[in-house]
Amino acid sequence: MSKKVVLGFSGGLDTSYCVKYLTEEKGYEVHSVIVNTGGFTAEELQEIEKRAYNLGVKSHKTVDAVRSYYDKVIKYLVFGNVLKNNTYPLSVSAERMSQALAIAEYVKEVGATAVAHGSTGAGNDQVRFDMIFHIMIPGVEIITPIRDMKLSREEEISYLQSKGVQVNFEKAMYSINKGIWGTSVGGKETLTSNGMLPESAFPTQLTKQEPEQVTLHFKKGELVGVNDKSFGHPTEAIQYLQSIAGAFAIGRDIHVGDTIIGIKGRVGFEAAAPVVILKAHHALEKHVLTKWQLSWKDQLAQFYGNWLHEGQILDPVMRDIEAYLESAQQQVTGKVFVTLLPYRFQVTGIESSYDLMSSKFGKYGEMNSGWSGEDVRGFSKIFGNQTMIWHQVNDEQGKKA
Amino acid sequence: MSKKVVLGFSGGLDTSYCVKYLTEEKGYEVHSVIVNTGGFTAEELQEIEKRAYNLGVKSHKTVDAVRSYYDKVIKYLVFGNVLKNNTYPLSVSAERMSQALAIAEYVKEVGATAVAHGSTGAGNDQVRFDMIFHIMIPGVEIITPIRDMKLSREEEISYLQSKGVQVNFEKAMYSINKGIWGTSVGGKETLTSNGMLPESAFPTQLTKQEPEQVTLHFKKGELVGVNDKSFGHPTEAIQYLQSIAGAFAIGRDIHVGDTIIGIKGRVGFEAAAPVVILKAHHALEKHVLTKWQLSWKDQLAQFYGNWLHEGQILDPVMRDIEAYLESAQQQVTGKVFVTLLPYRFQVTGIESSYDLMSSKFGKYGEMNSGWSGEDVRGFSKIFGNQTMIWHQVNDEQGKKA
Amino acid sequence: MSKKVVLGFSGGLDTSYCVKYLTEEKGYEVHSVIVNTGGFTAEELQEIEKRAYNLGVKSHKTVDAVRSYYDKVIKYLVFGNVLKNNTYPLSVSAERMSQALAIAEYVKEVGATAVAHGSTGAGNDQVRFDMIFHIMIPGVEIITPIRDMKLSREEEISYLQSKGVQVNFEKAMYSINKGIWGTSVGGKETLTSNGMLPESAFPTQLTKQEPEQVTLHFKKGELVGVNDKSFGHPTEAIQYLQSIAGAFAIGRDIHVGDTIIGIKGRVGFEAAAPVVILKAHHALEKHVLTKWQLSWKDQLAQFYGNWLHEGQILDPVMRDIEAYLESAQQQVTGKVFVTLLPYRFQVTGIESSYDLMSSKFGKYGEMNSGWSGEDVRGFSKIFGNQTMIWHQVNDEQGKKA
Amino acid sequence: MSKKVVLGFSGGLDTSYCVKYLTEEKGYEVHSVIVNTGGFTAEELQEIEKRAYNLGVKSHKTVDAVRSYYDKVIKYLVFGNVLKNNTYPLSVSAERMSQALAIAEYVKEVGATAVAHGSTGAGNDQVRFDMIFHIMIPGVEIITPIRDMKLSREEEISYLQSKGVQVNFEKAMYSINKGIWGTSVGGKETLTSNGMLPESAFPTQLTKQEPEQVTLHFKKGELVGVNDKSFGHPTEAIQYLQSIAGAFAIGRDIHVGDTIIGIKGRVGFEAAAPVVILKAHHALEKHVLTKWQLSWKDQLAQFYGNWLHEGQILDPVMRDIEAYLESAQQQVTGKVFVTLLPYRFQVTGIESSYDLMSSKFGKYGEMNSGWSGEDVRGFSKIFGNQTMIWHQVNDEQGKKA
Repeated sequence: MSKKVVLGFSGGLDTSYCVKYLTEEKGYEVHSVIVNTGGFTAEELQEIEKRAYNLGVKSHKTVDAVRSYYDKVIKYLVFGNVLKNNTYPLSVSAERMSQALAIAEYVKEVGATAVAHGSTGAGNDQVRFDMIFHIMIPGVEIITPIRDMKLSREEEISYLQSKGVQVNFEKAMYSINKGIWGTSVGGKETLTSNGMLPESAFPTQLTKQEPEQVTLHFKKGELVGVNDKSFGHPTEAIQYLQSIAGAFAIGRDIHVGDTIIGIKGRVGFEAAAPVVILKAHHALEKHVLTKWQLSWKDQLAQFYGNWLHEGQILDPVMRDIEAYLESAQQQVTGKVFVTLLPYRFQVTGIESSYDLMSSKFGKYGEMNSGWSGEDVRGFSKIFGNQTMIWHQVNDEQGKKA
Repeated sequence: MSKKVVLGFSGGLDTSYCVKYLTEEKGYEVHSVIVNTGGFTAEELQEIEKRAYNLGVKSHKTVDAVRSYYDKVIKYLVFGNVLKNNTYPLSVSAERMSQALAIAEYVKEVGATAVAHGSTGAGNDQVRFDMIFHIMIPGVEIITPIRDMKLSREEEISYLQSKGVQVNFEKAMYSINKGIWGTSVGGKETLTSNGMLPESAFPTQLTKQEPEQVTLHFKKGELVGVNDKSFGHPTEAIQYLQSIAGAFAIGRDIHVGDTIIGIKGRVGFEAAAPVVILKAHHALEKHVLTKWQLSWKDQLAQFYGNWLHEGQILDPVMRDIEAYLESAQQQVTGKVFVTLLPYRFQVTGIESSYDLMSSKFGKYGEMNSGWSGEDVRGFSKIFGNQTMIWHQVNDEQGKKA
Repeated sequence: MSKKVVLGFSGGLDTSYCVKYLTEEKGYEVHSVIVNTGGFTAEELQEIEKRAYNLGVKSHKTVDAVRSYYDKVIKYLVFGNVLKNNTYPLSVSAERMSQALAIAEYVKEVGATAVAHGSTGAGNDQVRFDMIFHIMIPGVEIITPIRDMKLSREEEISYLQSKGVQVNFEKAMYSINKGIWGTSVGGKETLTSNGMLPESAFPTQLTKQEPEQVTLHFKKGELVGVNDKSFGHPTEAIQYLQSIAGAFAIGRDIHVGDTIIGIKGRVGFEAAAPVVILKAHHALEKHVLTKWQLSWKDQLAQFYGNWLHEGQILDPVMRDIEAYLESAQQQVTGKVFVTLLPYRFQVTGIESSYDLMSSKFGKYGEMNSGWSGEDVRGFSKIFGNQTMIWHQVNDEQGKKA
Repeated sequence: MSKKVVLGFSGGLDTSYCVKYLTEEKGYEVHSVIVNTGGFTAEELQEIEKRAYNLGVKSHKTVDAVRSYYDKVIKYLVFGNVLKNNTYPLSVSAERMSQALAIAEYVKEVGATAVAHGSTGAGNDQVRFDMIFHIMIPGVEIITPIRDMKLSREEEISYLQSKGVQVNFEKAMYSINKGIWGTSVGGKETLTSNGMLPESAFPTQLTKQEPEQVTLHFKKGELVGVNDKSFGHPTEAIQYLQSIAGAFAIGRDIHVGDTIIGIKGRVGFEAAAPVVILKAHHALEKHVLTKWQLSWKDQLAQFYGNWLHEGQILDPVMRDIEAYLESAQQQVTGKVFVTLLPYRFQVTGIESSYDLMSSKFGKYGEMNSGWSGEDVRGFSKIFGNQTMIWHQVNDEQGKKA
């Protein structure tokens, strides 16, 4: 009886190689699994399944992880307004966590003694997959043929051809990774420090020119409606907003960041719905949260995003931060008004029962009923008291010196 | 012999009232001063001087604070990539610090026993001026007629007319505050939580349509050149960039934030050069600083911006943070490439001798010479070790329970 | 019908003055209230009640706030291991919050239109009381006779004597403020920057000499048992531990800190149970929490303690931090072993099912089964990768220069 | 011609094994080096040198790193009041950095192609040495025989005996690591989570009983004098203080902390001078720094200590934090008074020209000249303004719900 291995399978060259290699060279019974985090259509998933069986897997499974991805990860990225280095919505990093967790679950379900992934030895993903597997399924052997054998594309293709596999593995100009929280785009320009991706590299093209108003409805920090539509689950709201905002080619940028393994990496992306949601959510928060709520959220969320990026979603500190973020969302309920335009958007205002900018308590720039200029005069004196003392003490020392 | 008061004078209604009131009702010898932080032309400054003398000041002084404003404040806002709540470059808050410090200096120079400012009792500026004066010139009386008497525009105008002042004080649709680090715009829309300023409210209008490439040259974090021009002082580079980027109507937004006195305030702004510089500077930093340098910079700079906004520039903690920021800029040298477009811009890349994304040390996504897949395999195991142990310990407890 | 005022009443000179002043000079119906946070015996409370009626209050109320004080405040100080500036358990600051909240509740209950407290204009308490009242009972007038009239002890005594009050108000050598979370001691030595309080100044004297072992039982971060006793509420455990540890004169120190109004203040204290609990709790946490859980807890708790000290318990950011701390306590369950000695104590170890220092996962300093030296070799290479690249890039620049 | 290797040599069993192994099995020319960070006497160093030559090294070098250790590391630990997890002065972690850096320097000097250390695969030191070597001398081979061959004591002894080495390698009850910044003590009790080291395990025994007053003189944060003695370098002051305070058996404790490789490790230590200096320094800072200076110092120093512990001293972020700490020490000048007692000490006060607790600016608890109760009343209103608005807005929503 052969040994069982679960293989994360995308249908691409690397994981196709893995199927054949694990089956024929290593004698494994291969159980392939693909975890959809919103980037695949039903047709694409069927096509991938067909390819898996053609390559000789024992079984193939499609996991729909869109909702669990949102519930475990995206929700908190929205709560924290997480943009890595103030730029990148962590589209790929976040998704990998969700995929690795689902694969680990499947390993337990199938009772496999090994798990395989197609990562190379040069990127972040190998660390993310390895680490989640070490933690969730300790003892299960981790097999990474592409990394271990340092295989080139040509070597993989030639091996597959020798096994009679007749698939077209022509290299695309740009490598695309698509999910509900954004699409990454890598290619010639991202391999160096200078150069923007060309218009044509982005999967979603500009098709709308006329400005369009959208209203986003948030409830306790979650997007629950867009315009006059409300949705059963925030993932539907995200996808609906994407269908509107994507056509404006919004949320494109190029990011350079720190990989887990210490080198700098550059990646292009398009993420219309994520970027609009994050900015709209933040605008609402600025109206309903206090100064220090905003300040601590930023600090915790910066760490949360970085630590997630580094694959550490299972560190219990992440649960503690999520508890903080959840608590801070209790008043983040209301509407945010956004104007969409080609390549950009403008948050134009909010409406919320929890808005602290309430005219009842004084308008900025006009006189208030709750306090007087005399109160502020006293405040200013006391508010600067320590610094005043410091300067007097130090000026005196300065004079002596 | 009459008592001397130094009055911060802008030529507007409030401070015009103060001249007359201090002279005629309070018997002061008024020494007016205007501190230019880059918002006034030579003609405007002459006009203001003329108005001051017409109103009856004993002397009028114009302080050119553009460079000292940069050296003491703006430089560190750039080092820290400071955008309050990730939006607002602190155009006004930063400027007030510079003005209050210059006025306090002038009080000492003139030997005045009182200092006056035209702030109302409803905003941030009263706290900023009061506090700087308490600290720098303790014991000098602070006079704030508009705040203390809660005067309305109509009362002020009618008083001035009774004194024979024939100036046109018609209220502008939008109140504008202009300086080298941006222009604030307040008006009908900013008084409520919803509504964007109309195109016409912005002093700088869109006049360019065709995309334009600019190259920004940074040296130890400071902008020293634009395209093929280098400048004697970064303020000249900022003004030159503003002349190019302003015409694209870049850097407009509307911000809601926490005032020092606890209410929320909303303000529109346009700040083409500041916003382009901050994003370009940050892009360069992402290439030349380590992960933790970036992370701590963000945390310190967030506080720095907030504390500056609250008028606390003289707290010695600000010097400590500046020392940190200065240290972190030693490698922030190189070029940043930016494309300007109507209402938006795109940082397209950088070039720096300190770029850590050097092909010599491994390209992201390709195999590296300095380490092997085996090294990363070991790394992943150890990097997740504590969390692995945590889960095993806790799973066991979970099973018992 | 006379106006109602609620007066926070301690039975001391200041609040005795207030009763008479409010009744006789201001025509108020005075409803006095004392909030016991663990510092008073039943006899003392009866004595205070008697004194209140003798002075002429309309009604007097004793609020037992020991448990609510713990539930709302102390619990989180333990979760956060809060020692202000690493020294002071916030004995008084924390207590005042509890008292102010209870008084505000009583104002609503009685339907008073004013609230009075006996604070002077020189300390922290005035800010704490004022602020809680502004927030909880906005619109209710706050009366502070001692602060407003800048009364001296002598003036107060002479006024009371003129009203026929025959109480002994001799000034104690040391002013003592006692509560369940510690006792503050102020006097001659604390008024200057140098000098320790004499042995005799401390209310609790050393009466035990022989070392004594105690075992503290924590459940989700809360002290639920001491030695073989378990308790219905943590406050009972605290009081029981205090009865044991107090006799060792443990937890005495002198603290200098920042007052809310900007000056430095020095205060002595004794807090045997609080200090032992905090150190024991921290020791347990170091065994059961991950590195980053510990790190973020420290940062959040430092702020929590400072902000509480400044009277800001009602800022919703405090609820968010409490949610974090609560989440981080889920595994803080187990025993801590402590040796008590005269003036000091030693935490000697812990025992917990959640202990991450489990021999199953490798002993520090001995070889482990879960990973190899080769893994650590790979880890070290990758862990230092970015810094290695930085030094190579910078050394090269250095050589060129 | 044989290949050169530099070997970090302590004279113990592991590194003695390495000399023989590298020479005889691997054909290396061994250049041993010992880096003294204050733990060795001249006699001990001579003895170690003799042993090295007896084992057959080609050359042996003693590096006196006491001052450079202070200048590069200890100084900043004092500036930051660094106690890991509020307990441990990082005695060993800090020392290893200094040693690794000196060894790397020596590798360059000698022109060796390999460097060897005697670390096992179970602790922190392997990571620290590996990482510093990767960064400072990239390309130089790192040889770790004990780790790689997983050797037991017995195997090492038997190998050495087979080579005719006749040294006594009896295992001590407690392993001791001594340096100027403290002595670590490991043994039976530290291998489990419970149990204090016995009195006899500590190298320095209690020999004084009578309380003793000492005065510490700090200049810009550095210890420059003790009592009436001043010193040419702070390391001399530390050693002098150690000679006084050590006799009181002060600064003993047991610490459990997070190792770099993810497991928890427990270690005993004695560190009389370090602990007294850190507490005294902190007391002085509490008098001369502002609230926010203290707060940010704590956050940065916590990270600094942790990152140093993890061997990351060469990350440039450490230079940035040092710049912050250096800036924050400009006023940390003055005397601190300390009473030493058996097993404990008490900071009793300070004296400094920069003391912000100056009677000129108001005494805590007494009325001040610089501001009035009315000012504080205004302050309290404004200081709580945002929270007041929050509660009104939220109460209203609560009522509707």
